[in-house]
Amino acid sequence: MRVEDRLVEMMNHVADSRVKEAMIYSLMAGGKRIRPNMLYAAAHGYGLQDEDVDAFACALEMIHTYSLIHDDLPAMDNDDLRRGKPTCHKQFDEATAILAGDGLLTYAFETAATCKAEPARVVKAIGVLANMAGPSGMVLGQCLDTEEGETSVDWDALMNIHAHKTGCLLSAALMIPAVLAGCDDSVVEQWHTIGDMIGLAFQIQDDILDVTLTAEEFGKSNSDARNEKVTSVTLLGLAEAEKKMHELYAESAKRIEAFKGFKAEELRELIEETAVRNK
Amino acid sequence: MRVEDRLVEMMNHVADSRVKEAMIYSLMAGGKRIRPNMLYAAAHGYGLQDEDVDAFACALEMIHTYSLIHDDLPAMDNDDLRRGKPTCHKQFDEATAILAGDGLLTYAFETAATCKAEPARVVKAIGVLANMAGPSGMVLGQCLDTEEGETSVDWDALMNIHAHKTGCLLSAALMIPAVLAGCDDSVVEQWHTIGDMIGLAFQIQDDILDVTLTAEEFGKSNSDARNEKVTSVTLLGLAEAEKKMHELYAESAKRIEAFKGFKAEELRELIEETAVRNK
Repeated sequence: MRVEDRLVEMMNHVADSRVKEAMIYSLMAGGKRIRPNMLYAAAHGYGLQDEDVDAFACALEMIHTYSLIHDDLPAMDNDDLRRGKPTCHKQFDEATAILAGDGLLTYAFETAATCKAEPARVVKAIGVLANMAGPSGMVLGQCLDTEEGETSVDWDALMNIHAHKTGCLLSAALMIPAVLAGCDDSVVEQWHTIGDMIGLAFQIQDDILDVTLTAEEFGKSNSDARNEKVTSVTLLGLAEAEKKMHELYAESAKRIEAFKGFKAEELRELIEETAVRNK
Repeated sequence: MRVEDRLVEMMNHVADSRVKEAMIYSLMAGGKRIRPNMLYAAAHGYGLQDEDVDAFACALEMIHTYSLIHDDLPAMDNDDLRRGKPTCHKQFDEATAILAGDGLLTYAFETAATCKAEPARVVKAIGVLANMAGPSGMVLGQCLDTEEGETSVDWDALMNIHAHKTGCLLSAALMIPAVLAGCDDSVVEQWHTIGDMIGLAFQIQDDILDVTLTAEEFGKSNSDARNEKVTSVTLLGLAEAEKKMHELYAESAKRIEAFKGFKAEELRELIEETAVRNK
């Protein structure tokens, strides 16, 4: 997979250390690479080449990986397994896992800054990436998620958590190619909404798989069930959750088709593949 | 102080949440603002205005603050006091402190991307900032520092830790104005070396104050002494450490004077003030 090779290449530029080992351990643990793959597909839709967006594809996967490392920490979800392997703090130690997350997050921006597109667009894309990943985006989602236990969560509150926790990075995967292709802000904002929808669909799918698969098949601990968390399945029931998920995927595909000057096929196919994944 | 106002302004753009509260708590806890002040002084030396570099001054202070929050965590230095107040995880909780650090680190890059200088220079400056803060820079320093207990540390190893842990962000404060002013890479690299020197001097000074002041005067726990860490004072003795510190400050001042086209006075005075600080 293209992004794998680029990630290995980028990591070669990092000074050797235990924290580098831990960064590589988590980064190369065999994730599905959904975010970079969506970014490449959206870029192709705008006629951009892989090499135009490699930097941001890698940056996005680094940020996703850091968020998993920190989310798994004892003070957060306290998970022992991730993608079928010991989580970073189990394989190394807590201090190293904290630093590996910090290292990946910081290196994501160093990587993004190597993008050779028009500099004004690169600056804007870095701003979008940070906004979607930061305290008004994904980090806010994590914060709302940790507070969840303290209040009774209804459907709207749960969707707000997931839009931030999962949707924001998927939005970034779609918004960044639009920025690098020189689209207007209004178009970039439409991609934001589509990313939120796919994020919600994706999270509902995760909730469904979490109850229908064993930990071994799923490759991570069923921490949500274990922690008795509210999920889309506990709120809606399995059948209704599946219906909602398919509606969201269908609506996002429809909106993608509607963009002028965007070749939708590759991205639409990727989303369809994702919609039928079973792990 | 200029950077205080800009930090407040930037934080106003963040969505309200507990993590925002924690970010503000640590960011506005009354730090000395040495890094942004050095950045402004270096910028003035190149004829840049405050507004040209506000974005990076704020970004640098956010990154410094995140590093303190994560460094204070139980899995790291496990400190209860910072700048005379409870550390972030004591005031809030561990999960919120991890997220506040992540939020500040991410928001630093969103803030940096608001810089209105020539975009190609902004991209380069973001790359420098991330490189100095990341896994080949400050994060490497933190990693070496946590491994310190496992091996016997000599002077060179200790200086290597401090050059990364403390020096890199001070280097960034000096390199970024040079990048934004359009200097050659060789000039930017000279600022890197000067930042390392000031960082070492600064750390030796910290080690000296750590043994000569009480926790109350110093405003943080004497965790190094409590943890029986090797410091420049334990390796060199107090008198020799003071001599070394003054040599480093003097050499950095000399090199700053030697730059062509750089008005050194303000930066040199700032470094002199720092050299005589007693808290």
